[in-house]
Amino acid sequence: MTASTSARVPQEERTRAMRQRLMEAAFELLVEKGYGGTTTTLVSERAGVSRGAQLHHFPTKTDLVVATVIHVTERRAEEMRSATASLPKGQKRTEAVVRMLGELFTGPVFSAALELWVAARTDPALLEVVAPLEYRIGRETHRLTVELLGIDESQQGARELVQGTLDLVRGLGLANTINDDAKRRRRILDQWARTLDAALHPAGRKDDE
Amino acid sequence: MTASTSARVPQEERTRAMRQRLMEAAFELLVEKGYGGTTTTLVSERAGVSRGAQLHHFPTKTDLVVATVIHVTERRAEEMRSATASLPKGQKRTEAVVRMLGELFTGPVFSAALELWVAARTDPALLEVVAPLEYRIGRETHRLTVELLGIDESQQGARELVQGTLDLVRGLGLANTINDDAKRRRRILDQWARTLDAALHPAGRKDDE
Repeated sequence: MTASTSARVPQEERTRAMRQRLMEAAFELLVEKGYGGTTTTLVSERAGVSRGAQLHHFPTKTDLVVATVIHVTERRAEEMRSATASLPKGQKRTEAVVRMLGELFTGPVFSAALELWVAARTDPALLEVVAPLEYRIGRETHRLTVELLGIDESQQGARELVQGTLDLVRGLGLANTINDDAKRRRRILDQWARTLDAALHPAGRKDDE
Repeated sequence: MTASTSARVPQEERTRAMRQRLMEAAFELLVEKGYGGTTTTLVSERAGVSRGAQLHHFPTKTDLVVATVIHVTERRAEEMRSATASLPKGQKRTEAVVRMLGELFTGPVFSAALELWVAARTDPALLEVVAPLEYRIGRETHRLTVELLGIDESQQGARELVQGTLDLVRGLGLANTINDDAKRRRRILDQWARTLDAALHPAGRKDDE
């Protein structure tokens, strides 16, 4: 390694770490104070970064918002991947997958995404950033759910039931922001899982599925 | 009628009409500009009411917000009642009810409610107003859905399937704010109606149901 590359690498790492801190601060503020309450001043304070340094990394508020939208989307994808790692097989598979999806849509990452969706509804510039990312993560979540449930999508109605399951957990997540009721959610998800199994595996699941 | 009551009645009517205009303006602004964009100045402009008159009817922003939350909730209840008036009976009943619910959660009244829910998530004072009204309209919607579907709630899982149906349409409504896709929504709702019928009326619906 030459002197010039060794000097450049730490600089790149510092830049990456600084950007990461600012996006993480913006994420936390979205969860705590909502989109309207997430000002650039609060973000720099929370991140412990000077205004000058912040403006160096994100010259406009839009730059910071775009980076934060991408950051939140990446966190959702990561959360999803790590949640799928420890799912059981066999009879209880569907219940476990549906419960897991329910949890993905009730945590702080969901709250941050919700703030961005709702702000984008009345902000066309933000919508242009949010919509394509939402489309991509939506497709990825769908693909993963089909795989986890071991569903054959050529089966009549299977595709719509998977989509419906994802819309169900989105709706449960939204209700949860007003009235957190984990027991109610659990009962609904478990019944949904039983109904899904009856519709998609009428002959019953095999243990080795 | 004495002179004094005849003078008072028009005054009461004017007051009611003026409050109604201000709440309607606030409602429209919630839909168009979101909660953060709904300022008291814009509300008086939109309603064509002087700031003085507005302050007479709603001394603080909180007074106006509370009245608007109630107004939006009443509009949701009215929309629901009028939507249920023309539902068919017989085989297609479940599909019609589920489609009707889907429509209730995609219009401007849903958007206004969504803005209030999400603002309430990070605003404890607003949450105190929104949560009990939400609870009441949630119970009313549930009761009406059970009645419309002709479901016996003592049946195993029936209660959870109705709740799940309402969470599904809430989730579809939220998705709709980012990516309006009426065809996708229709396919999901129709499939869910078939699944619901299979789960709740395994022997088939009778035409006179």
